[in-house]
Amino acid sequence: MATGSDPIPARGELEFIRRLRARLAGQLPPTSLPFGDDLAPLPGGHDLLWSTDMLMDGVDFDSRVHSWKAVGRKALAINLSDCAAMATLPVAALCAVALDNRLTLENALDLADGVIECGREHGCPLVGGDTNSWDHPTVISVTVAARPDSPHPPVRRDGARPGDLLVATGRFGGSILGRHLTFTPRLAESLALSRACRPHAMIDVSDGLARDLGHICTASGCGAEIDDSALDELIHPDARRQSARTEREPRLHALHDGEDFELLAAIDPQHAAQLDREPALAGWRRLGRFVSGGGLVLVGQNGTRVAVEPRGWEHFT
Amino acid sequence: MATGSDPIPARGELEFIRRLRARLAGQLPPTSLPFGDDLAPLPGGHDLLWSTDMLMDGVDFDSRVHSWKAVGRKALAINLSDCAAMATLPVAALCAVALDNRLTLENALDLADGVIECGREHGCPLVGGDTNSWDHPTVISVTVAARPDSPHPPVRRDGARPGDLLVATGRFGGSILGRHLTFTPRLAESLALSRACRPHAMIDVSDGLARDLGHICTASGCGAEIDDSALDELIHPDARRQSARTEREPRLHALHDGEDFELLAAIDPQHAAQLDREPALAGWRRLGRFVSGGGLVLVGQNGTRVAVEPRGWEHFT
Repeated sequence: MATGSDPIPARGELEFIRRLRARLAGQLPPTSLPFGDDLAPLPGGHDLLWSTDMLMDGVDFDSRVHSWKAVGRKALAINLSDCAAMATLPVAALCAVALDNRLTLENALDLADGVIECGREHGCPLVGGDTNSWDHPTVISVTVAARPDSPHPPVRRDGARPGDLLVATGRFGGSILGRHLTFTPRLAESLALSRACRPHAMIDVSDGLARDLGHICTASGCGAEIDDSALDELIHPDARRQSARTEREPRLHALHDGEDFELLAAIDPQHAAQLDREPALAGWRRLGRFVSGGGLVLVGQNGTRVAVEPRGWEHFT
Repeated sequence: MATGSDPIPARGELEFIRRLRARLAGQLPPTSLPFGDDLAPLPGGHDLLWSTDMLMDGVDFDSRVHSWKAVGRKALAINLSDCAAMATLPVAALCAVALDNRLTLENALDLADGVIECGREHGCPLVGGDTNSWDHPTVISVTVAARPDSPHPPVRRDGARPGDLLVATGRFGGSILGRHLTFTPRLAESLALSRACRPHAMIDVSDGLARDLGHICTASGCGAEIDDSALDELIHPDARRQSARTEREPRLHALHDGEDFELLAAIDPQHAAQLDREPALAGWRRLGRFVSGGGLVLVGQNGTRVAVEPRGWEHFT
């Protein structure tokens, strides 16, 4: 706790990670990837990457509503989305759980089945884990190892350049109505783009379109313009349904809701025609462009410019 | 939930793992290691192993008593103990947390510092993770990757043979008085034994001496005899202190308390003299022998034989 005379310490996941990065400075093993991307490198020349994600009942899912199999599926799929974000291929998964003691053995096996089935669909077998139980809501943590799609190196989030096209898979907003559990990790779209266009940067949208686009911009030292008309086409019907409940504009849901698990990428504009032509790239649409200077701007067809806050979901605020 | 006419389903971590193993049968990638050892193999010819362990506030530590740095240290150290159990070398760690929202940023950084410092001591850098928060007790999950100590393959738990000596590091019992947080993972002892004696089987004692010895016996299809007099010498002073509180015999604490994080190994009796002679093996003591047939028996100097239940800590019962 802060003492009376101290300022209240800053919080938030990003401040935590910033302070953590400072603590790790100089002692991280030399690797080709910076700390804090979607996957971490495995040092020691092993050429593998890995990622871990934790889900908590009541925060990331609701066991009163969602099936345990759907929860297990999500726990692996969000890690596979991280693999997709760097254009890598999943190798295998580990799963640790703290099971609410009120669960039955069948509930626990359903949870495992969700992980196993999702892994089977995407070539990512569950190979081990850790089973625990307690008198609080269930927590599930999955770790995935991935390998580069050789000869292509993993796509980082810090390589966007002014002039690059901003492209995206899928549609955005309102995932809380159910898609945050049932989404398909964009592994195929990611590999197709990586092989065809060598993207300069890529990220998966877990915290929200604007916020994750902001992560690319901050890491890359540039800004981005989103075309109003392009955004309109990428608003998910769920964003409109959600809008009817919240009375916030659908486009605000598309920009700021979390857990779309779609991909954003920066590609050289020379690939524009390819994007429109190649069937393997049909899952990708243009959304705007990267520009010099910082910040996100929504650009109207008549030239209007509206600043977009890079906000979305943040833990530990 | 079980319906009225169904039998109440069996529970327990081991039953869960047994059912899980059955579900995974036939779909696990071909590897040289069975499912359920201390580390899992990474398939695809990558020659790495990995392990994950989850700690929950109020179960595996008590944040009202223990410092966050000590908790972070334990979260990594229990994984390093898994590395030691197979005579492998840690490569790097990932850490996922669900932070109780009442924590300060400094608490969270102390937790991370515990992981980082323990990693620095044992050559296992923290390279990434996932930060979450919620209104429940803190959960921390660490995953470690390890590499074989080439040319020695990882030591499994299923290779003990009747006639092998049962050897152990350290002393047992009463770790709940504090050692479960401050123990040193037996990486050095493990590698020394592996290089000198090529153990047939090894495990770390997380669930309790008798229970983890039982895991070796079950996996190896044999039994074990513990020498009464040898056990007496391996009773930790904490087991005696704990005995004064519980009025259970100190040796019962040594046999059944969890979280000693010492090692048990099966070695060929031809290495007996080496064990007594080599300074690098000074951390190892004889505790008994493996025998044909199942079960654990405590053998007195006068020949008395008392069956030992392979019980200890079990989650999800």
